[in-house]
Amino acid sequence: MATLAAAQLDYSSAPPNLSTLTGTSLFSTWRPKIHVLPPFGQIGDPCMHYTDPSTGLFHVGYLFNGASEATTDDLVTYTDLNANGDPFIVAGGINDPIAVFDGSVIPSGINGLPTLLYTSVPYLPIQWTIPYTRGSETQSLAVSSDGGKNFTKLEQGPVIPSPPFAVNVTGFRDPYVFQSAQLDTLLNSTGGTWYVIISGGVHDKGPSQFLYRRHDENFQYWEDMGQWWHETANSTWGNGEFAGRWGFNFETGNVFTLDEEGYNEAGETFVTLGAEWSLEPIVPQVSDFREMLWASGKLSLSEAGQAKFTPTMAGKLDWGHSAYAAAGKVLPASSVPSTKSGAPDRFISYVWLTGNFYGTQSFPAAQNWTGALLLPRELSLGTIDNVVDNDLARQTGSWSVCANDTSNGLVQLRTLKQNIAREPLAALMASNASFIEPGQTISSPRSTPFAQSPDTKFFVMAANLTFTQSARDSGLKAGFKILSSEYESTTIYYQFSNESIIVDRSNSSAAAESSAGIDVRNEAGRLRLFDIMEGGDEKIETLELMIVVDNSIVEIHANGRFALGTWIR
Amino acid sequence: MATLAAAQLDYSSAPPNLSTLTGTSLFSTWRPKIHVLPPFGQIGDPCMHYTDPSTGLFHVGYLFNGASEATTDDLVTYTDLNANGDPFIVAGGINDPIAVFDGSVIPSGINGLPTLLYTSVPYLPIQWTIPYTRGSETQSLAVSSDGGKNFTKLEQGPVIPSPPFAVNVTGFRDPYVFQSAQLDTLLNSTGGTWYVIISGGVHDKGPSQFLYRRHDENFQYWEDMGQWWHETANSTWGNGEFAGRWGFNFETGNVFTLDEEGYNEAGETFVTLGAEWSLEPIVPQVSDFREMLWASGKLSLSEAGQAKFTPTMAGKLDWGHSAYAAAGKVLPASSVPSTKSGAPDRFISYVWLTGNFYGTQSFPAAQNWTGALLLPRELSLGTIDNVVDNDLARQTGSWSVCANDTSNGLVQLRTLKQNIAREPLAALMASNASFIEPGQTISSPRSTPFAQSPDTKFFVMAANLTFTQSARDSGLKAGFKILSSEYESTTIYYQFSNESIIVDRSNSSAAAESSAGIDVRNEAGRLRLFDIMEGGDEKIETLELMIVVDNSIVEIHANGRFALGTWIR
Repeated sequence: MATLAAAQLDYSSAPPNLSTLTGTSLFSTWRPKIHVLPPFGQIGDPCMHYTDPSTGLFHVGYLFNGASEATTDDLVTYTDLNANGDPFIVAGGINDPIAVFDGSVIPSGINGLPTLLYTSVPYLPIQWTIPYTRGSETQSLAVSSDGGKNFTKLEQGPVIPSPPFAVNVTGFRDPYVFQSAQLDTLLNSTGGTWYVIISGGVHDKGPSQFLYRRHDENFQYWEDMGQWWHETANSTWGNGEFAGRWGFNFETGNVFTLDEEGYNEAGETFVTLGAEWSLEPIVPQVSDFREMLWASGKLSLSEAGQAKFTPTMAGKLDWGHSAYAAAGKVLPASSVPSTKSGAPDRFISYVWLTGNFYGTQSFPAAQNWTGALLLPRELSLGTIDNVVDNDLARQTGSWSVCANDTSNGLVQLRTLKQNIAREPLAALMASNASFIEPGQTISSPRSTPFAQSPDTKFFVMAANLTFTQSARDSGLKAGFKILSSEYESTTIYYQFSNESIIVDRSNSSAAAESSAGIDVRNEAGRLRLFDIMEGGDEKIETLELMIVVDNSIVEIHANGRFALGTWIR
Repeated sequence: MATLAAAQLDYSSAPPNLSTLTGTSLFSTWRPKIHVLPPFGQIGDPCMHYTDPSTGLFHVGYLFNGASEATTDDLVTYTDLNANGDPFIVAGGINDPIAVFDGSVIPSGINGLPTLLYTSVPYLPIQWTIPYTRGSETQSLAVSSDGGKNFTKLEQGPVIPSPPFAVNVTGFRDPYVFQSAQLDTLLNSTGGTWYVIISGGVHDKGPSQFLYRRHDENFQYWEDMGQWWHETANSTWGNGEFAGRWGFNFETGNVFTLDEEGYNEAGETFVTLGAEWSLEPIVPQVSDFREMLWASGKLSLSEAGQAKFTPTMAGKLDWGHSAYAAAGKVLPASSVPSTKSGAPDRFISYVWLTGNFYGTQSFPAAQNWTGALLLPRELSLGTIDNVVDNDLARQTGSWSVCANDTSNGLVQLRTLKQNIAREPLAALMASNASFIEPGQTISSPRSTPFAQSPDTKFFVMAANLTFTQSARDSGLKAGFKILSSEYESTTIYYQFSNESIIVDRSNSSAAAESSAGIDVRNEAGRLRLFDIMEGGDEKIETLELMIVVDNSIVEIHANGRFALGTWIR
């Protein structure tokens, strides 16, 4: 759960009259078409996805006055499961009188039914910047027997009623269920055991993931296995250039196992997570920064017999200021979407794009919708071959050197591979009238219009940019100007001096001058282009850029390992 | 908490119009004068007593639409702390939306203020006869800063949010705070550490007391120290003659340390407790029997390093069918009552006398009050000297043989000594016109009227009955007929054949024929009169009988180690 200060949340407000919404021009002015969002109102964290074993449909959930969901049979089109996107669970029970935070679903849980483990909230406020109110976050169960339209809370107390004994946590939420063959072996568990990680941290120490193991067939008890991952407060991965800060508190942690094809229970361990931090002095109830991170690492057993996760590489799942709280789920090959597309077992993740910067910006409520989910991504274990074994490759970053593959001064690197899922990607590439701009070679600074440009605010652009070796130490910036008109334009470019893809929004929104709360800060993300040996020549890796424009949402993907989602209004 | 089936409790009913109450004749017909009870309505378990360190007054608490209390400076007269006995805590908070069960008070707790640890209840029903609803009993804190008129709940979750991990309890309630020098030594705790026992049991295993140790200065965390006492389900102490059954679930456990003078933190360990059981077949939500027990025992360390309590003797704190849920507390010599009477540190216990047999009897609600507390008792370590070392002394019973004192074929026995507290006892003996009936020797069966008899329903009678050695194997019954009129009388007698004091109520209540729900079953309790060597002669111990009649409440005390409270209407 990406928590906001309590005062900024209104859990009691009723939804507006729906019939008034789509008729207003502002409702559709910036509304995306190919991204997941509810019919109206503010979408929160994605979470609680699952494949229904009885239908094979994939359910994509998100917080929404509780939580709501849509089903999909192809990852392209989505159907609200309830009318108007009504929630399948709402706050107000004995365990959660105040709020329902993120959770995750065991597809065949209690009595073989989809079983939700979620954070039940009886006390607010909660934030890492203030003392923790004991018992304000507990983990409870709910079960659906109607295909996911409703999840009925068990009439009992929480199944994880508190953090580990006497641990003064900064947060304890967003339980994520997963299976892991490596963990089974390490902890001597039965094969296919369910685990949970709960995200949070410890005051004065730093962020943590708390590991639990299923204890009984009724999913009633989850055994405390300790903090399987802990980082020193506000530390960074390496020098921080490639993965931001670990911050003070983790949120929305997912754990999953990948190979090069996609999901594999016996594969390498990956996590995605949110990290919260602020600049000094820390202001109570204000978390200035939220980082959308991923990490991969190795598992080991501590002297005390606890499983420990130690990162070997870490990066940003998304570099956008507003991109956060990603939630993914195994999508089995046997699911309807994967059967249709012929995909193997996959791990599909949706990143949240907050529409009002976590509730802190006053972007017009009159729009009557806020936020969306970015396009689903397929995550897998990525490799970069034939990389020259130099300082660029050896730096601690969002990749690791695969020691088994060093020869001739070359190394293979591993990283998190992330691409727009194959079905929506195919749909994007096939849509409308597509055109191919002829290749250009640009050797001096200038702006060159394309022969043909998209005339809508809905398009996808793919481009490969190659650079000569001299570019690396130059001031070179290379990219594209999009959504350009007489008064507005946005420039997206790669800048070698800091190895960054930059989205210059300073001239993006003429409306920003009249409408308060439109964020026009630049967006930026770091992507290293390695030196590659290709046919005996050392070259700079080609920049493979894809820009998806869906009205006000712009997604920039690069080289299968960089993503940045943002608003351009 | 003496729990009733949920359907029998009405937590939502408002109190009646008080002005209508005392005017009704039925209100005062059977109402006692010297026993503690609220101004109207149904009193529940006594609990939450404490001596206020700032005033030295003793606070006597009891469940009453939440919990209420009265203060006393002499254990004889009591003052309701709030008007009409209004509660100082009520159910309806986030932790306890359904009910507040028993608790206990640390006199100088959080910020030096009286701090209540109590059972907060979010789910019902709860009983050992049905599956346990997880989380239905948690332990929460409340603090009083206004002299006990109100205890304000901490705005946070429970401090003991669940039973020990994966223990399928039958109950988990009535936290009792105490200190123990023996436990400090055994568990390597700081001197004066606060402990808590929580009463309950484990399904299919038997009743237990769960031990916790204070962890931090804010009383936030209580360390799980395991089940310090567990008995096999429905087993008995010895052959069961002297202490009834351990049953299936413990309730209202108190732990305290006594020497021969009274309370001593370094003294022997005693417990009082309620035990619940039923005859086969067990009917869901019906607990046929409740035993008001005590035990004393030794402490040891298990192989796993846990403190274990093992009884060395056990008995009934009260033999009355309706006597249950006793709650006591240390009353320091420095308190106002003890300063006035010159008493040392004492442990004072109040037994609950349910007025409608735990809610199962229909005794007229028109009376507008139900139940009372029996007179306060001083508990101490009792000794019986010069006991002949024969089978009577060696049986497993409500005494233990003090091995250090065997000589000349005599032993000293130890037991729980319990007498009416010295202040109310003195007040009783000094009240009204007292008279002394001349001694009589009765050698054949007959009923002999006293020369003088009390002419009120409020009196105390003390009598010593001595028996010849031949009585032991005879059918001898000896006792008194009280509350006698043309149509009613109650016989209280000792019967050697089963070593019992019997209260024959079969002819006690003429009203029972017209008013349903008046219990006229006999009451009985076992008291062994030992063989004592006195001046070289072996004699049967003298039966020292005291009968207190307070309108409809009759208390029978004998030999400082037998008590039976009951109703005679």
